[in-house]
Amino acid sequence: MSSSGFRLSARAKAAKASEIRELLKLVGKPSMISFAGGIPDPSLLGVDLVDAAVREIFSGPASAREALQYSTTEGFAPLRQWIAESMARKGIPAGLDNILITSGSQQGLDLIGRLMLDPGDTVLVSRPTYLGALQCLTAHGARFAQQDAPLAMDGVTPKLIYLIPDFANPSGDTMSERERLAALDRAEALDALVIEDAAYTDLRYEGENIAPIAALDIARCGGIDASRTLYCGTFSKTLSPGMRIGWICGPAALIHKLALLKQGADLHTATFNQRVIHHAAVAGFDTTVARARQTYRTRRDAMLSALERHAPPGVSWTRPDGGLFIWVTLPEGIDAAALLPLAIAQDVAFVPGGAFHADGTGRNTMRLSFSLCDAAQIEIGIYKLCTLIAKATQPRMQVG
Amino acid sequence: MSSSGFRLSARAKAAKASEIRELLKLVGKPSMISFAGGIPDPSLLGVDLVDAAVREIFSGPASAREALQYSTTEGFAPLRQWIAESMARKGIPAGLDNILITSGSQQGLDLIGRLMLDPGDTVLVSRPTYLGALQCLTAHGARFAQQDAPLAMDGVTPKLIYLIPDFANPSGDTMSERERLAALDRAEALDALVIEDAAYTDLRYEGENIAPIAALDIARCGGIDASRTLYCGTFSKTLSPGMRIGWICGPAALIHKLALLKQGADLHTATFNQRVIHHAAVAGFDTTVARARQTYRTRRDAMLSALERHAPPGVSWTRPDGGLFIWVTLPEGIDAAALLPLAIAQDVAFVPGGAFHADGTGRNTMRLSFSLCDAAQIEIGIYKLCTLIAKATQPRMQVG
Repeated sequence: MSSSGFRLSARAKAAKASEIRELLKLVGKPSMISFAGGIPDPSLLGVDLVDAAVREIFSGPASAREALQYSTTEGFAPLRQWIAESMARKGIPAGLDNILITSGSQQGLDLIGRLMLDPGDTVLVSRPTYLGALQCLTAHGARFAQQDAPLAMDGVTPKLIYLIPDFANPSGDTMSERERLAALDRAEALDALVIEDAAYTDLRYEGENIAPIAALDIARCGGIDASRTLYCGTFSKTLSPGMRIGWICGPAALIHKLALLKQGADLHTATFNQRVIHHAAVAGFDTTVARARQTYRTRRDAMLSALERHAPPGVSWTRPDGGLFIWVTLPEGIDAAALLPLAIAQDVAFVPGGAFHADGTGRNTMRLSFSLCDAAQIEIGIYKLCTLIAKATQPRMQVG
Repeated sequence: MSSSGFRLSARAKAAKASEIRELLKLVGKPSMISFAGGIPDPSLLGVDLVDAAVREIFSGPASAREALQYSTTEGFAPLRQWIAESMARKGIPAGLDNILITSGSQQGLDLIGRLMLDPGDTVLVSRPTYLGALQCLTAHGARFAQQDAPLAMDGVTPKLIYLIPDFANPSGDTMSERERLAALDRAEALDALVIEDAAYTDLRYEGENIAPIAALDIARCGGIDASRTLYCGTFSKTLSPGMRIGWICGPAALIHKLALLKQGADLHTATFNQRVIHHAAVAGFDTTVARARQTYRTRRDAMLSALERHAPPGVSWTRPDGGLFIWVTLPEGIDAAALLPLAIAQDVAFVPGGAFHADGTGRNTMRLSFSLCDAAQIEIGIYKLCTLIAKATQPRMQVG
């Protein structure tokens, strides 16, 4: 019997509240130094671009009316064209039939889960991986196994491999080209699809671009329609998360199936938002992204150097080439979740790493985002956090 | 083996393209008199209201940045408050915890399907009913039975009853209070939930309002949190379909579960759109709706009088008190789908009624929308259509 008293579906019974939800509520407190939210700095978003786009749309009654009317499930053709051109520059030659506009890349994951998963199906993931992917795919009945380890059970044939190749949430790690090719080898051997979550790909501020898995796949198999990678993109980390515009790029036959599922799910993504984002992207995607890269790089550097100054022995961390996250590993036996209330009491927030592991491990890890804080806040926050970690590392010596 | 070559989920294999999709593509042809689209007249939408709302949001950098940022899954509190007050005026006392903002009411249906349905579960529906509901619930494994008929199979216990009580799509029919109470009786006897799809409720232009099923339910059981009705509302038929803002109003325990499912599905509905629609609703919901009602009433009257003038014997139709649709029943044996290409050849479009029936019946029916045409177009379109129907009714007499 469920808490609501009604006979809910098996999927609904499995849905659990996320710690992230609770934590995100803290971000709003003005005194809080928040390393918790995985969200872009609002001052770096395309506010002026969106403003200009909206004025353009409302400059004529016909374009305003069209922007407020129903539209096709596949999405606004000029926006898909812009995306197709940007995919081509990444080594992914795509036509309009290869692109479906989604309500953020989260909906992309959800639709692919619907497309592929029956209850009990296995999905290969990194450890750690994006919490929202675990939640979403769990709702479709997924079980999880590690993407680069031998399969633990005979007879398990995973249908999906979910990867965030660039500056991953939460680890900050980037997969090398060799690792990407190995993942493709595995997908081919298993006859599985690859979900390439490219949420952070445009936010590289150091090192050379590495070819997307979709590009490597297409180079091997000869064309996008013969490929097995579904590339999930988004404008949420560049122009605006609040507009909820993402896309899936992949083989036309799968995109067509995904569009049918999307039609049942929400008819189409908001017409207005697609037109606004198209205008904004044409007018200034590159300059907006360039500004964001510069700022995030400065903040990453501030956090890395603060960690070097303040972290006690036995603590290690990643050094991301882009994105918003540094991943910290504490000495074995330290529970990051137990540190969180102590940190919050001192106005510092982070996300304990356990939530990002499908297998219940990772209790001694934490995700730190540097996206919302300036260098001075980062210095203070890391100092406070490292002081708490140092105390937790040596509790017995301090007592008595 | 699916057409894509990959091992798709059972749900994905069941997804079928809709005739509506194909038909809607015709609406754009300038010479076409379209009675096909179930869409509001764009000149009646809240274009000026949305324009003013957007200017207000962009008048200060803080409000612009907030509108472009991530936000909570439940939705923008001031918008939920506005909706709660409008629910109360309909006899549905609701608090913020009783309201979840959705990406159009279509997403409301989809989330409720996820919440309740396991494959093979039965949903009771009207015959005919909204095609988008059939598609969406089918994707969750639903089977269908008629809402006001005895259950055909022993041991079948429906979990959901899906109803459009006011000026239904496609029939134009309105359920009497007695019929609403009977549906509630049945839901109680089956321990089923009721989905009250209120997409057209605000578009009444004749007769007295009838209490929503949710209001009757609450009056019986004493409070919304003890009720079994999920009311799905939308701004799509009043302010703008292209903004994709709807809501579910119901017991807090179910709203909480639905919010968890929505988080996995798309994180949240676009922040920007929720704020715009809130501004627009406060500034002029009532005047926008009043203007739409007056125009649709005039068009309904034009279509009813054209049908009276031109329809051959044996043809009957509904007389809606609101909404966008008239439902036409042709003599038995006439196939509306076979008439459609003939009509399109004469630049008249409609939707054959078979698509709206879960059980394959209704081939001699058609849905006519008067929302997009002025009185002159309606006169010509109905004349042409009735001429075709007359020919189809008496084909043998005309030959030889």
